[in-house]
Amino acid sequence: MSEYRKDPVLNQWVIIAPEKTISYPAIKEQAIPENLPEFDENCPFCKFNGEDTKILLKYDFRNNGKWDLLVIPAPNPFLRVETELQKEGEGIFDLMSGTGANEIIIESPKHNEFTYKMDLNRVEQIFWAYHDRIVDLKNDKRLEYLLFFKEFGITPENKIIHPHSKMIATTFIPAHIELELLSAEDYFSYKDRCVFCDIVKQERKEGIRVISQNEDFISICPYASRFPFEIWILPQKHISHFEMSSKIMFYHLAEIYLDTFKRLNKVLGNVPYHTVLHTSPVQEESLEFYHWHIEIYPILNCYSAPQSGGGIFVNPVKPEDAAKALREATF
Amino acid sequence: MSEYRKDPVLNQWVIIAPEKTISYPAIKEQAIPENLPEFDENCPFCKFNGEDTKILLKYDFRNNGKWDLLVIPAPNPFLRVETELQKEGEGIFDLMSGTGANEIIIESPKHNEFTYKMDLNRVEQIFWAYHDRIVDLKNDKRLEYLLFFKEFGITPENKIIHPHSKMIATTFIPAHIELELLSAEDYFSYKDRCVFCDIVKQERKEGIRVISQNEDFISICPYASRFPFEIWILPQKHISHFEMSSKIMFYHLAEIYLDTFKRLNKVLGNVPYHTVLHTSPVQEESLEFYHWHIEIYPILNCYSAPQSGGGIFVNPVKPEDAAKALREATF
Repeated sequence: MSEYRKDPVLNQWVIIAPEKTISYPAIKEQAIPENLPEFDENCPFCKFNGEDTKILLKYDFRNNGKWDLLVIPAPNPFLRVETELQKEGEGIFDLMSGTGANEIIIESPKHNEFTYKMDLNRVEQIFWAYHDRIVDLKNDKRLEYLLFFKEFGITPENKIIHPHSKMIATTFIPAHIELELLSAEDYFSYKDRCVFCDIVKQERKEGIRVISQNEDFISICPYASRFPFEIWILPQKHISHFEMSSKIMFYHLAEIYLDTFKRLNKVLGNVPYHTVLHTSPVQEESLEFYHWHIEIYPILNCYSAPQSGGGIFVNPVKPEDAAKALREATF
Repeated sequence: MSEYRKDPVLNQWVIIAPEKTISYPAIKEQAIPENLPEFDENCPFCKFNGEDTKILLKYDFRNNGKWDLLVIPAPNPFLRVETELQKEGEGIFDLMSGTGANEIIIESPKHNEFTYKMDLNRVEQIFWAYHDRIVDLKNDKRLEYLLFFKEFGITPENKIIHPHSKMIATTFIPAHIELELLSAEDYFSYKDRCVFCDIVKQERKEGIRVISQNEDFISICPYASRFPFEIWILPQKHISHFEMSSKIMFYHLAEIYLDTFKRLNKVLGNVPYHTVLHTSPVQEESLEFYHWHIEIYPILNCYSAPQSGGGIFVNPVKPEDAAKALREATF
């Protein structure tokens, strides 16, 4: 029996229309092959030697004299900090110069180091790299937002399987984030409480959509999930900006993130996925009404929900069923 | 050189980041095969005999005693008009019963009748079918919106290539439409004019993004296109509800729609696409600030623009270049 569900974050109805059973065999057919080499001579990140590229950040946490994690400008970036910010109108339309930044975070020297296989320290260092880039780039007052995301095995040009994530820095707030901020602010003016804090409390109490939790974080399948096996990882306590997280939070984040990906891998196999960090705009002071979090979207083509160009999401997997499967996974 | 563009309909910045040349060979590789039979014994629509299914609408415009166009309930619908509308809260979340409708418009008895191959009369009849379903279903006051769309060759379960479109009727306004309505209403309160009327005037005057036009319609690549070769077909004069279009408008709509698809086919080949009708909510009286239109999205996987979970659209094809290629197509 299907139903419409709404959460106060996006304030949009989603149709939850569960199919009789979750078709795990069909899901596993789309897995990205796991038997990849540690070094692939056709891979630009495997072959990276730093000669022609500016290195923005480099970690050598295994202290072996080579790099463990790198941040570099995207080759052929579509946004550049060097571009002077200019704004003009074209009749009723608006135009801005392509000021901003595109960066690539190369998460490991190894071509086949899928997230779920990484060690805890590496995962933590990836989040520290995000932190360091935010702290550096927020000095450029033209930049309003830094969006960190990972698209694993999704599209032809993203079929660089070598573990990496991306960052786009813009002089505007991305549409989806803007919507969340507006909804969250509305909720706060109505309730005088942060909507994400309320969600965390309710989910912790009900438990049926909780995947796992630790001292600082909780991992859930949201009530009004738009996509099958959609996952959110939220701080347990209110905090608006990712870069304001305490040192121990980075460790606990790595713990829950790795735990979540191990469960995902166990239940769904090595599926393509999309993960994105939702945090507050960098030039804002801390916000009472917004709470940073991470959203994870496995891409399950056997279930392509019709987006249908009008924004109607039809999710064939009940979030409670997805959470249960992930929660009960053993590995 | 890339730039940010914004239009007042969605009021969101889009990054236009043109690649050096449009890679037509890569685009044409994704074409849906054209050498399909007129009858496919594995296709449920080819074999449709009406025995177990309620027929909601049937046209026999060639007067040969068989059907030319049918509207039927979707098999395994996720929404039903029979479901009583119930609303409740679950803590801070909202829940509604799955009241609504799912319908399939089978556009032709022939399995291989791609849109661009149809004759003008058939295309017009498809739009009359949409009209007739709206006029029927709007009597159910629980239904707020009817979304008509077509997903050609996109996903595994949409690989029923047999020409068909779909309708979802909901007791809420779909998110994307809601955004358009709000932006349009804002614009109207600021300018005292309909934003779509202003867009039509500006595009007609500038011409660089116009594909074609006739007495009643104009076909353009929007200034702030989010996707490569995104196309909008708009009425030249203000009209808020699709179903309020005059009789001759249906003929002219068919004319420009077919013309647009012939051009698309010539330039991009038989690519998968997504098309959707954006019209006013059915229970509203005519609206001064909103203007119905059709949006067409060819799906060009070689160009998958990263949506990146934050709503940043990066379009590698300038709308002016797309419009020029389509405008100059000969067939």
